[in-house]
Amino acid sequence: MYNFEYQNPVKIIFGKGEIQKVGENIPAGSKILLTYGGGSIFKNGVYEQVKAAIKGFEVVEFGGIEPNPHYETLMKAVEVVKQENITFLLSVGGGSVLDGTKFIAAATCFQKGDPWLILSMKAPVVEAIPIGAVLTLPATGSEMNGNSVVTRVETTEKLSFASQKVMPLFSILDPEVIFSLPEKQVANGIVDAFVHVIEQYLTFPVNSPIQDRFAESILMTLVEEGPKVLANRTDYEAAANFMWSATMALNGLIGVGVPQDWTSHMIGHELTAYHGIDHARTLAIVLPGVMHIKRELKKDKLLQLGERVWGINDGNAEERIDMTIQKTIDFFESVGLPTKLPDYGVSTDTIDKICDRFKKRRFKIGEKADIGPDAIRLILEDRL
Amino acid sequence: MYNFEYQNPVKIIFGKGEIQKVGENIPAGSKILLTYGGGSIFKNGVYEQVKAAIKGFEVVEFGGIEPNPHYETLMKAVEVVKQENITFLLSVGGGSVLDGTKFIAAATCFQKGDPWLILSMKAPVVEAIPIGAVLTLPATGSEMNGNSVVTRVETTEKLSFASQKVMPLFSILDPEVIFSLPEKQVANGIVDAFVHVIEQYLTFPVNSPIQDRFAESILMTLVEEGPKVLANRTDYEAAANFMWSATMALNGLIGVGVPQDWTSHMIGHELTAYHGIDHARTLAIVLPGVMHIKRELKKDKLLQLGERVWGINDGNAEERIDMTIQKTIDFFESVGLPTKLPDYGVSTDTIDKICDRFKKRRFKIGEKADIGPDAIRLILEDRL
Repeated sequence: MYNFEYQNPVKIIFGKGEIQKVGENIPAGSKILLTYGGGSIFKNGVYEQVKAAIKGFEVVEFGGIEPNPHYETLMKAVEVVKQENITFLLSVGGGSVLDGTKFIAAATCFQKGDPWLILSMKAPVVEAIPIGAVLTLPATGSEMNGNSVVTRVETTEKLSFASQKVMPLFSILDPEVIFSLPEKQVANGIVDAFVHVIEQYLTFPVNSPIQDRFAESILMTLVEEGPKVLANRTDYEAAANFMWSATMALNGLIGVGVPQDWTSHMIGHELTAYHGIDHARTLAIVLPGVMHIKRELKKDKLLQLGERVWGINDGNAEERIDMTIQKTIDFFESVGLPTKLPDYGVSTDTIDKICDRFKKRRFKIGEKADIGPDAIRLILEDRL
Repeated sequence: MYNFEYQNPVKIIFGKGEIQKVGENIPAGSKILLTYGGGSIFKNGVYEQVKAAIKGFEVVEFGGIEPNPHYETLMKAVEVVKQENITFLLSVGGGSVLDGTKFIAAATCFQKGDPWLILSMKAPVVEAIPIGAVLTLPATGSEMNGNSVVTRVETTEKLSFASQKVMPLFSILDPEVIFSLPEKQVANGIVDAFVHVIEQYLTFPVNSPIQDRFAESILMTLVEEGPKVLANRTDYEAAANFMWSATMALNGLIGVGVPQDWTSHMIGHELTAYHGIDHARTLAIVLPGVMHIKRELKKDKLLQLGERVWGINDGNAEERIDMTIQKTIDFFESVGLPTKLPDYGVSTDTIDKICDRFKKRRFKIGEKADIGPDAIRLILEDRL
């Protein structure tokens, strides 16, 4: 295991009925900007619960934060925060609303020019408006980390930043929010969380049995509980286990002291930027290609994944790796996510564009930083 | 899974050579009380590393904190903190030094009478001197929680308190400290961490697959890596995995949303109070008795433990439970901890005294709060 530092001060408030605690967790006297997305919170009762719980606070609302939140939209919110002297941001929504809120928090306090630099140049975030979150969709893990991904429509760029400063002070996770989610969002959440774990696990061994087994614990739980949630959206216990899995998948814990990949995310972001494909669906497309093209580098971990998560013990190493990749594809497709580019109407033109874009960047990706434009082409061509 | 709240802001700094970071993690201008135990830090080089890393700070030293730290000793340290206007406590030692330092931190700021009330009456801790830790012995998990256990020699009482206020700001975990540990301390640490997991796991099922699997992950890792550390104290990788297991065993994570037991600890504390038996050894004695006497209540989890950790799949339920208990006893004895009362020269007199003491207390113990003096007698008599 490598040396590491780990600190995660986010307060998790988990369980049915817990949204009522939102007010008592916001500093007294705060002026709140309540951020939300497309308006589902008005239909599922979350808005009413939140409003009842923050009675007494001065509240301004900012809705319409998109999936893959737009820089252009978020900069409008920054103006509101400044004009209204907002002192606390309350994100009520899924990972996109929360990612967007994190960018609003950082951009408002950014003193060194255009806040886009936080994303494009990884300009350090030295200050941010404090954030609280009421999560309405388990998927991204954003509720217990300092990560944010933002899309600039104008330039079709999807970029990320990370800072301890934008970790929520608290996140409220009430699994009952899942009861009214559309099937597609649940399916996306299952695959998103699954691939978050894979990005921190499916690399090369560094003798880290705790991290490995925790990762496998989350994968096994997603494989078991995800389909139960899809089959019966009001199965509270399955919803709770799925929701806690998604948080644990990306709160940093399983990634300490181990190599990390993130190739599927880096390539997937481009598919979202060019075609607007849901984030999780881009991961379902790209990951099997990464597993196949990088099977030599990832050999030991592919075999371990096969044995411990998919129960694959028979056959020689190459056969077991083939079965491990196929089992992963089958799982994604079983929850309703197609895994090939043509399923989404994406052609070789897009592969060319993505490879060109990676050619212009100086860095390579993957746990060994050995994946450049040529390997990316192979990965994407594997998904045709 | 039950509703829960979880927050753990301790910054973990993990790995070889990391003790050098202690100074940069202490607030500038702090006046430090460096607390330590019996002086092993002068022999293993840790004292020199720490002193080099905190050059420039004003430092007062307070040594001699005992295993099972004594209230009487700690109150002397409180006097030093007050007289010297100490603003930061740096614990350099194992769990006992850190537990003692937590009590010093809370007792110094306690305004409502005798600080013993923090332990005897669970008087709330509203303020505490900030703490940092350099851990020299993996075992108690104290480095990533707000728990503390203190012994009052005068009354042979061993009591605990818990508060977010005494969580360390940071804990430095350099696995190389294990290289010079005596075999007995390593063995104690393995069993201590193992039983910490068991207290949060071996209860009754509440459909919490993430918590269960994380718990089993830690148990399996302790069973694998513990003996490697005992066999070769300078196996850095095994030492690192053991150290991280011990921290994860009691940082609260595996205990969220699930019932907890702590019977073995409650009874074990009495054995330490009366006979001075090492904490971990009391657990090795008591746990098998708890498993046996509470086998009906714990049936499902005993079977799960047997299957997932000890690989027991054959036989009927009662046979598998017997094998699970025996495997646990065998593991404790294989690392060098005897598991019967007579091995420690403890007779039935002590059982009488312990049962009398529990009779005077109003509460019962265990995950169902159904273990009173009679059940405690059965548990201890099982260990004769």
